[in-house]
Amino acid sequence: MNQVRIAELAWPVYAERVGSGAPVLIPVGALEQHGPHMSMNPDVLLPTAIAERVAADIGGLVAPAIAYGYKSQQKSGGGNHMPGTTSLDGSTVTSIIRDVLRELARHGVRKAVLINGHYENSAFITEGVDLALRELRWDGIVDFRCIILSYWDFIDQATIDAIYQGDFPGWAVEHGGVLETSLMLHLHPDLVDMSLVHDHPPAVFPPYDVFPIKPEWTPASGCLSSAKRARAEHGELILRVCVQGISGALQTAFD
Amino acid sequence: MNQVRIAELAWPVYAERVGSGAPVLIPVGALEQHGPHMSMNPDVLLPTAIAERVAADIGGLVAPAIAYGYKSQQKSGGGNHMPGTTSLDGSTVTSIIRDVLRELARHGVRKAVLINGHYENSAFITEGVDLALRELRWDGIVDFRCIILSYWDFIDQATIDAIYQGDFPGWAVEHGGVLETSLMLHLHPDLVDMSLVHDHPPAVFPPYDVFPIKPEWTPASGCLSSAKRARAEHGELILRVCVQGISGALQTAFD
Amino acid sequence: MNQVRIAELAWPVYAERVGSGAPVLIPVGALEQHGPHMSMNPDVLLPTAIAERVAADIGGLVAPAIAYGYKSQQKSGGGNHMPGTTSLDGSTVTSIIRDVLRELARHGVRKAVLINGHYENSAFITEGVDLALRELRWDGIVDFRCIILSYWDFIDQATIDAIYQGDFPGWAVEHGGVLETSLMLHLHPDLVDMSLVHDHPPAVFPPYDVFPIKPEWTPASGCLSSAKRARAEHGELILRVCVQGISGALQTAFD
Amino acid sequence: MNQVRIAELAWPVYAERVGSGAPVLIPVGALEQHGPHMSMNPDVLLPTAIAERVAADIGGLVAPAIAYGYKSQQKSGGGNHMPGTTSLDGSTVTSIIRDVLRELARHGVRKAVLINGHYENSAFITEGVDLALRELRWDGIVDFRCIILSYWDFIDQATIDAIYQGDFPGWAVEHGGVLETSLMLHLHPDLVDMSLVHDHPPAVFPPYDVFPIKPEWTPASGCLSSAKRARAEHGELILRVCVQGISGALQTAFD
Amino acid sequence: MNQVRIAELAWPVYAERVGSGAPVLIPVGALEQHGPHMSMNPDVLLPTAIAERVAADIGGLVAPAIAYGYKSQQKSGGGNHMPGTTSLDGSTVTSIIRDVLRELARHGVRKAVLINGHYENSAFITEGVDLALRELRWDGIVDFRCIILSYWDFIDQATIDAIYQGDFPGWAVEHGGVLETSLMLHLHPDLVDMSLVHDHPPAVFPPYDVFPIKPEWTPASGCLSSAKRARAEHGELILRVCVQGISGALQTAFD
Amino acid sequence: MNQVRIAELAWPVYAERVGSGAPVLIPVGALEQHGPHMSMNPDVLLPTAIAERVAADIGGLVAPAIAYGYKSQQKSGGGNHMPGTTSLDGSTVTSIIRDVLRELARHGVRKAVLINGHYENSAFITEGVDLALRELRWDGIVDFRCIILSYWDFIDQATIDAIYQGDFPGWAVEHGGVLETSLMLHLHPDLVDMSLVHDHPPAVFPPYDVFPIKPEWTPASGCLSSAKRARAEHGELILRVCVQGISGALQTAFD
Repeated sequence: MNQVRIAELAWPVYAERVGSGAPVLIPVGALEQHGPHMSMNPDVLLPTAIAERVAADIGGLVAPAIAYGYKSQQKSGGGNHMPGTTSLDGSTVTSIIRDVLRELARHGVRKAVLINGHYENSAFITEGVDLALRELRWDGIVDFRCIILSYWDFIDQATIDAIYQGDFPGWAVEHGGVLETSLMLHLHPDLVDMSLVHDHPPAVFPPYDVFPIKPEWTPASGCLSSAKRARAEHGELILRVCVQGISGALQTAFD
Repeated sequence: MNQVRIAELAWPVYAERVGSGAPVLIPVGALEQHGPHMSMNPDVLLPTAIAERVAADIGGLVAPAIAYGYKSQQKSGGGNHMPGTTSLDGSTVTSIIRDVLRELARHGVRKAVLINGHYENSAFITEGVDLALRELRWDGIVDFRCIILSYWDFIDQATIDAIYQGDFPGWAVEHGGVLETSLMLHLHPDLVDMSLVHDHPPAVFPPYDVFPIKPEWTPASGCLSSAKRARAEHGELILRVCVQGISGALQTAFD
Repeated sequence: MNQVRIAELAWPVYAERVGSGAPVLIPVGALEQHGPHMSMNPDVLLPTAIAERVAADIGGLVAPAIAYGYKSQQKSGGGNHMPGTTSLDGSTVTSIIRDVLRELARHGVRKAVLINGHYENSAFITEGVDLALRELRWDGIVDFRCIILSYWDFIDQATIDAIYQGDFPGWAVEHGGVLETSLMLHLHPDLVDMSLVHDHPPAVFPPYDVFPIKPEWTPASGCLSSAKRARAEHGELILRVCVQGISGALQTAFD
Repeated sequence: MNQVRIAELAWPVYAERVGSGAPVLIPVGALEQHGPHMSMNPDVLLPTAIAERVAADIGGLVAPAIAYGYKSQQKSGGGNHMPGTTSLDGSTVTSIIRDVLRELARHGVRKAVLINGHYENSAFITEGVDLALRELRWDGIVDFRCIILSYWDFIDQATIDAIYQGDFPGWAVEHGGVLETSLMLHLHPDLVDMSLVHDHPPAVFPPYDVFPIKPEWTPASGCLSSAKRARAEHGELILRVCVQGISGALQTAFD
Repeated sequence: MNQVRIAELAWPVYAERVGSGAPVLIPVGALEQHGPHMSMNPDVLLPTAIAERVAADIGGLVAPAIAYGYKSQQKSGGGNHMPGTTSLDGSTVTSIIRDVLRELARHGVRKAVLINGHYENSAFITEGVDLALRELRWDGIVDFRCIILSYWDFIDQATIDAIYQGDFPGWAVEHGGVLETSLMLHLHPDLVDMSLVHDHPPAVFPPYDVFPIKPEWTPASGCLSSAKRARAEHGELILRVCVQGISGALQTAFD
Repeated sequence: MNQVRIAELAWPVYAERVGSGAPVLIPVGALEQHGPHMSMNPDVLLPTAIAERVAADIGGLVAPAIAYGYKSQQKSGGGNHMPGTTSLDGSTVTSIIRDVLRELARHGVRKAVLINGHYENSAFITEGVDLALRELRWDGIVDFRCIILSYWDFIDQATIDAIYQGDFPGWAVEHGGVLETSLMLHLHPDLVDMSLVHDHPPAVFPPYDVFPIKPEWTPASGCLSSAKRARAEHGELILRVCVQGISGALQTAFD
């Protein structure tokens, strides 16, 4: 698997792979609290794990993950007031994406995939891609293609049913919940302590956002739903579904 | 109604209203194609109409709408390659929001509401609010409160059922569809020509975004679903539901 | 007249008009106090009214007005400390202009006109145009032409004489004075209340600017000269002179 | 005179002068063509000469001149297409002003004067001052005062009459004309060669700006009016009038 | 050792550690070619390894490494034209540092250490720290202390003598040479293949930089000196010297 | 010598020189304290003096010096807390360099040389050059070459030996020391007062930087080593060595 990590290749190997048309996958994460039962890096580790497996499937490469992301929002990540959550301004996220894509294009890469693991990054990744394509166009490069995806968008209804048994609280409150915890239990069991899960009902929010946020709206755990039902087997299933889905999608998209 | 539009007040009247604690609502829209049957300003006119009615209900004021918004995305707005769609960079949207809020706070406003009418604006509005609150904090202003909402988030299931009769295609493809067209038929019938509606099935997209976008994925109309079932009565209902919902929410939120 | 407003066109109509070479006029205004007798939007409404009439004359189109402008200066607009005046940073104004022009060029527009209604915007519009032309050049677009004008520069001496009877206080202090008030009386009489005009002599300033500004230098009204002599007929005359002058100038300039 | 130039002081002397409340004057110029008969630095040398004399009068200090300015505009400086004219983006000018003022305030300076020698700089200086005052306010510094002036605004009608004998073409076209050339003849005769003056009538422009500019609108010399009547004695007079006027104004303003 | 990695802690543990005054160390690296014999991540892995050991010594924590850095310069890193080297604009590096420090301060951290592993980052880290301290000051936080260091500055002459036997080519050309390779051999032997070392004399450069760089000045390997004498034992020694030196320095500095 | 200063040329002369391929040298300095015995402009005057002599040698031109530079660092310039030191943000320095180079290229210049006199500027000059080359590339200009150098890098060991007699403290602490003072004594003796030299041992710093800096680490003089041994003759020697070295280097580099 090692051979997909760009950072672990010597440059001539990388140059050869790029020269053969390998797509490059970039995990985009965050350093963000995910409850008292879990480490703060799931948004980095999960898209990285998926990216590495997808890259192995499709002959791609994986760039170092973007380890810091956009500000956590209360209704999707508990809020940016939480200890440990360490976020960048939107323009910083956008600049990182733009700069990295510009460099990949210079190397000769023509297919890039941003694999997002932190919901709040989405729009700033999109803007980074747009700015990169603009600059590349000015450089006469018009065949650079870029795909943006969030891995959870590849989890189908059958998988949700199998895991949640009809009790799916919705993606909106899946922060630090069954999905992420199960994936971590499968991939990094040492970074989860199920005995520390707070078993509370899903957070309920009004249909608007308030700033400054109201800390009391976020459950004390920092999670938006309970991870109690998390299982390593669920994680294994989700991982397989995501990897297969994304691998297939990329092969179609880059055809 | 007129008396809610800040732009139409003389400054002493505005100053008096602000001094009494009036919240200020800011419609945030876009100049974006909405199909061959409709003008390109629904994202401005609709949140403005809602804002004016809500302001009348709650004793608020309405600032001039932000008339240009963030880049249209293919899966929510048809894509930024369409003629007529006239979009700003993300940092420009963010700067406008930050600057306007900073000025409102200088006037003495302490309650601001961003009423979004263009999905793609969301994250950049959020960042603008965050940057404004940061600067206000540096200025010693810590009691400025800000609410961000998108009006469609206040349409309840009963209303959806009443309008779509069980055939709701999802918000994702409601661009230029039944919802926006009905509201425009009710509010601005002169800007809609139902004879030009393309009656096509909802657009179907894969669970990822591609850049440069693939123009062939967007229906030729530029709409993501058909507006054929749009009716002025539906628009009247939606408007009433949104105005009531938002008025109530703001009264609670600012209590 | 309606048919000149881009925002009120469906995209295929807009695309067709642009394809035929229609120039696009962009009113650039501000939300700024204009005294106790007048609304705060003359800098938006006046260039918009002129732009729509000019567009009708020359076969052009009018983009939505830029509704917020650069900071009011004490010697030309009373100062940015006044309640209601809601201004953007210079870089924000510049970015808006650059972004909008970039999009118009993408649509195929090759003739754009910035019709300024707020003196303080001037330099930041100019910079926006320069940055837009630079980027367009990088995109290989070198035939995009842009005109910047302030409508009052088209008022000739004869008109001034007819209105002021030899008592013209100079453009510098015309903020909220006879000129703008007369135009508003003609175009939007409901937004003017002549009974609230403060009849004071023109403001007198030293030949330099001080920051922080000295509030006591601005007349209590916020106007820099008295609007007492304002008349709707004057407004009608000024409007006609401006529209004719600008229409003629654009036809020459774009020949 | 030397003792007014900050750059030529050792830091303890500077610190002592600042500690005593000395105002600091900053000449803001440009590197810009001024015709075939003159060097390209009048916009730096003239405000510097004035600043040094004013500083001597009022016990002030002079900071190093800003040697590059905003883009030359066709109707005030011949245009930014001319060889030799070397201009900065607006945001760069603004940042320089903001940064320098922020540092002066750190030193303890509380009175700063921007002496502008290049018309096109004006708005970007103003924005730089506004941004500096905002940041200083965040740092708790609220007694920093700043004056912006352009030296030609201190030339009174009597002086104009004495020099032009009723034939004053207006400030608008004084670029490289009698005023600047006379001052240079008085102050830096080695940088003027009167035998190379092009004697052409003042440039005539329409009441709008065109971009890209039309090179043929600028006289071949690059000057907007003829310097033929320039005399060192005129320069001496203008210098005296400006220095007296500015010295007096600053004493009043900082009282 | 695990317990020093912030990303691997749950937030309550992190909050508790920060509450006890733990300093936070941030490795700042780059994705940069380091010759055909080595992976492209030494600038990330080496400061991370050192940071983790130092943190263990002094009771500190280690934040996720900054994985992309400033542009490789020809005379210190071979140049930014090399395949694989993936660099950020200076302003992007600066923004990342500023944003991360701002967030750490919000958590309550008051001692931060930037451990640089990529020479070219230095000035942009410094600027990021300066901007962060400025913003924190505006937020009333004046006791946040920050240390910037490059690990190689802690290698003493005795160590250099022991390793190079009097043949030290100078830090300037140590890119991909004995130092970095020895550390990698000790810490990550799987990422080095000594059989692929190019054994060439140190690169020689003139005392200036040329842009665009001259590719022929960089040895074909991308390294600036030969790693042939690299040994895992040297790496072990260097690591020990750096960890001891830095641990001692931080204890003194934060006393 | 005069004929090398761009600012002192009329534009047709400049245009002719540029048309003949003259390289342009840009001194980049700072306004920075250099001890109680010396003015605050050595970082401007010294690279300017060198640039003018080199330009005379190689047929080049000298642009106006950049008079303000990046923030003084404690270990190379005493620190940015010192009175008189007046510094720009990094992005401002970078923007100035980028803008000036862009304009030179528009004039037809194809060889530019940045002659740095302030150590802390280095990385921000480099970034400015990189951004300028990027934009020029977008404009289709790919033959613009740029050299960056710091004049002290051309002082050879023989010269150091001749001056310091084996007691060279290292460049790191040469701020306000023998080197700069000797050059100033030779070139601008009126700006040095040797009776005010503080004769203290070289400053000693740990191998890291602390922020906020510790004022007590900087000698009270602001200098990092004693200028006591400074002599005009040393300055004459250094100047000759630098001018010869740089002239020769540029002739080779631009061949």
